[in-house]
Amino acid sequence: MNFQVQILGSNAAIPAYDRHPTAQVVSIHNKHYLIDCGEGTQMRMNTFHIKKSKIEHIFISHLHGDHIFGLVGLITSYALLKRKKDLHIYAPMGIQEIIDVHLKDYTSLYTFQIHIHIISEVGLIYENHSISIEAFPLEHRIECYGFKFQEKPLQKNIIAEKIEAYSLDFKEIVRAKNGEDIQRDGEIIPNSELTHEARAPKSYAYCTDTIALESILPIISNVDLLYHEATFMHDAVERAAITYHTTTIQAAELAKKAQVKKLIIGHFSAKYKDLEPLLVEARTVFSETELAIEGEVFEL
Amino acid sequence: MNFQVQILGSNAAIPAYDRHPTAQVVSIHNKHYLIDCGEGTQMRMNTFHIKKSKIEHIFISHLHGDHIFGLVGLITSYALLKRKKDLHIYAPMGIQEIIDVHLKDYTSLYTFQIHIHIISEVGLIYENHSISIEAFPLEHRIECYGFKFQEKPLQKNIIAEKIEAYSLDFKEIVRAKNGEDIQRDGEIIPNSELTHEARAPKSYAYCTDTIALESILPIISNVDLLYHEATFMHDAVERAAITYHTTTIQAAELAKKAQVKKLIIGHFSAKYKDLEPLLVEARTVFSETELAIEGEVFEL
Repeated sequence: MNFQVQILGSNAAIPAYDRHPTAQVVSIHNKHYLIDCGEGTQMRMNTFHIKKSKIEHIFISHLHGDHIFGLVGLITSYALLKRKKDLHIYAPMGIQEIIDVHLKDYTSLYTFQIHIHIISEVGLIYENHSISIEAFPLEHRIECYGFKFQEKPLQKNIIAEKIEAYSLDFKEIVRAKNGEDIQRDGEIIPNSELTHEARAPKSYAYCTDTIALESILPIISNVDLLYHEATFMHDAVERAAITYHTTTIQAAELAKKAQVKKLIIGHFSAKYKDLEPLLVEARTVFSETELAIEGEVFEL
Repeated sequence: MNFQVQILGSNAAIPAYDRHPTAQVVSIHNKHYLIDCGEGTQMRMNTFHIKKSKIEHIFISHLHGDHIFGLVGLITSYALLKRKKDLHIYAPMGIQEIIDVHLKDYTSLYTFQIHIHIISEVGLIYENHSISIEAFPLEHRIECYGFKFQEKPLQKNIIAEKIEAYSLDFKEIVRAKNGEDIQRDGEIIPNSELTHEARAPKSYAYCTDTIALESILPIISNVDLLYHEATFMHDAVERAAITYHTTTIQAAELAKKAQVKKLIIGHFSAKYKDLEPLLVEARTVFSETELAIEGEVFEL
């Protein structure tokens, strides 16, 4: 598992038909990132056998209830389970107040640190040796951000037989993986002789809740996987505009223009019991579309 | 359905084994009352096909997360579903602040009134023509209340054949049901001739979270159904004391002393996967004990 996205909740504000409010786990090189945390997210993690303790970073798109009402419950469980690891929460202004009002009675139980990182503009919000995460503004009824997870360039793959053939030592292997030629007493072993190219770094963009925004095209352009809300079928395009949401067709058109490899649509209105028509409609514009079915894992 | 209790969530603070945080619906003469509202309560109502809109009164025992983290989600759904009926919430001081911090972005959506009733002492907190609801203090780490639902005396049952035999008119029927004799030109038809006795009024007491309290015995004495927390098996009696919770044996002893008809134990610690040993242990003291299994309906 190098890079995958698992859907925990895919419905819009009103839970229905056993679909839950928004949450998903992005896993990259064995690190796990939670995006949004609707009511019941910790129970969804139980259902799908996701170890809650693995989550160290939580990204909140905006402060509407269906994206955050599970957060204080999750934090409380961490406290009761005597979590030790720090927890980082990235969210728009206002998140501290929400956590404080709920958890003031629990602070004595805290066995771990919570670090709040307020998102207020476009740009890098987190990075480590293997990924960077960027926030970008969406357009909803309140301040709202999308997130782009960009894998960093991977090391080249060393060809196993060449290690023995050239008696490469540890430092030489590291240099070869980093793309360098190996120099020995004037002799040069070209890097291309020792390694295969690494696969291209992958990227994932997450966009909910929002109207369809052309302004995000440069950011989501060519991503391997795009999650974009499609709260409504296209016949409800006016309702989508009024409520600052997107339709199937609009999401698919963005995916097409951005030339993404695959689109997942989600954040379904409770008015739709059967989701198949949303999928069919989106695919008329962009065939590589999938539904955000809860529990499903999308490998990049 | 005259008087029943349906369990929606029966676990203590950490959800586990598909058991959820505390919530239950008490239904009396077709009115529905929600007690506590842990995270996911609105989804539990979906699961058990309970119409959310029927709830007009919500009683919150205390402000720990596992009893309230579902409240703002439920209120939000009411707003989005364009609820019209007033909603009454009875809870200890602090509830308004919690609702306000979450729902300030939703107030424009409100199509209904929320009335907050702060509970601060023992006594009647609600009544209508068929029941009265009393709060009484429990002893937990924070301010916490139990609730007693007391059915009012029922009207006598008129004997159908007597209506014709005596040509009783509407007003006479009402008087007979109220226990009066019927007077006609000096003739007296004694009430006992016209009616059967109504069944005795029923009562339900709800006690969580708390240490085992002898002081509540006068209130819970002889109730038809007692829900009492039993977070732990009795071997964890010290842990129960430290965390201000009750053991199986303690709950059963209270039920026995109060001479209740039936005891339901609940609020199970996440340390217990199998609940059967808790039931067996409680029944060694009070045989009429049942487990609060989610979805189960207890008829009084």
